[in-house]
Amino acid sequence: MKVPIAVSARHAHLSAATVQKLFGEGYQLRVRKWLSQTGQFSAEETVTLIGPRGRLEHVRLMGPPRDHDQLELSRSDECTLGITAPLRLSGDLEHTPGLQVVGPAGAVTLHSGVITAQRHIHMNPEEAQRLGLHDGQTVSVKVDSNGRDLIFGDVVVRVAPDFRLELHLDTDEANAAGVTNGDYGEIVTSDPASHRPVDRTTG
Amino acid sequence: MKVPIAVSARHAHLSAATVQKLFGEGYQLRVRKWLSQTGQFSAEETVTLIGPRGRLEHVRLMGPPRDHDQLELSRSDECTLGITAPLRLSGDLEHTPGLQVVGPAGAVTLHSGVITAQRHIHMNPEEAQRLGLHDGQTVSVKVDSNGRDLIFGDVVVRVAPDFRLELHLDTDEANAAGVTNGDYGEIVTSDPASHRPVDRTTG
Repeated sequence: MKVPIAVSARHAHLSAATVQKLFGEGYQLRVRKWLSQTGQFSAEETVTLIGPRGRLEHVRLMGPPRDHDQLELSRSDECTLGITAPLRLSGDLEHTPGLQVVGPAGAVTLHSGVITAQRHIHMNPEEAQRLGLHDGQTVSVKVDSNGRDLIFGDVVVRVAPDFRLELHLDTDEANAAGVTNGDYGEIVTSDPASHRPVDRTTG
Repeated sequence: MKVPIAVSARHAHLSAATVQKLFGEGYQLRVRKWLSQTGQFSAEETVTLIGPRGRLEHVRLMGPPRDHDQLELSRSDECTLGITAPLRLSGDLEHTPGLQVVGPAGAVTLHSGVITAQRHIHMNPEEAQRLGLHDGQTVSVKVDSNGRDLIFGDVVVRVAPDFRLELHLDTDEANAAGVTNGDYGEIVTSDPASHRPVDRTTG
């Protein structure tokens, strides 16, 4: 079963309150590009992240704003900043580190919200049924590339009506497999017994 | 068959001539730490790399100096710098990009020498014989980690008398597998028919 690959570069989902602190009162994020997942967009706005060791500039914001600030970084990014964030699914933000976020109108020190995204496949219920997979299960996905073939284990299946079939990797994972946006992987094994708690937050 | 993992962060092997341009006439690199491969060391000295898009500071030099300048970067590093370097084994530097290197006593513009290291396993001839492997062959290596299990394909076997058994990964690859220095992988498959030309340069 072929699965299109989407590579997530470092990005931030911020709350409306945080957006206003960084960009000014009443500020609304501007849509740069609608994402394949319904209703989500990458915004025109970017921020600077500052950690104890270094900084990352031009970090893309996603919209619309969420209830909680969530920053998704690769381990390479975390090394640059000097922090270590746990491997988590979107929305699972307990006991995560924070950092300083700087925008054109102000700066905010977040005390939590930084995660390394657990690799996962989005799919809708019809696709899950057709593949014999269920939400929260883990599968393996094989990638053929020129010189960096690999098989990703620990890929979590996430099922929701507004999801499109897509394997989400971070930049470290995509680089290690030699793939970019629009390449394809193939689900090669699944462990029907596997199940982990998954929250319902999109992304 | 268990194989210890060594993670290579971005680093540079420079020629004696380049070292002198960057650090001053007659300058000798100072040993910071001997590497597991005989006679090689990481040096006290670091340089700054400048590409069309950005810069990387504190990039570690390796010693002793080589005949040719060679910079080994991860794809994440290349993205920061704004360059794309091909996947190569050490010493295979034809048609590779360059960049600007800055040291305390001067700067040098290299016109080639930047590579993304092809993942590989070092071993000595006795180990190769015991494993039924030969120089230039590719194998797959399985890594079990907490949440980022994977199987690396396209791992090139490199055999030389002064090599110690070790899987060499770059930081993107190590991050994608959730491993660090001193963790272990396991050789799970080998393709006896596989063979690619391999140069004899150490590293």
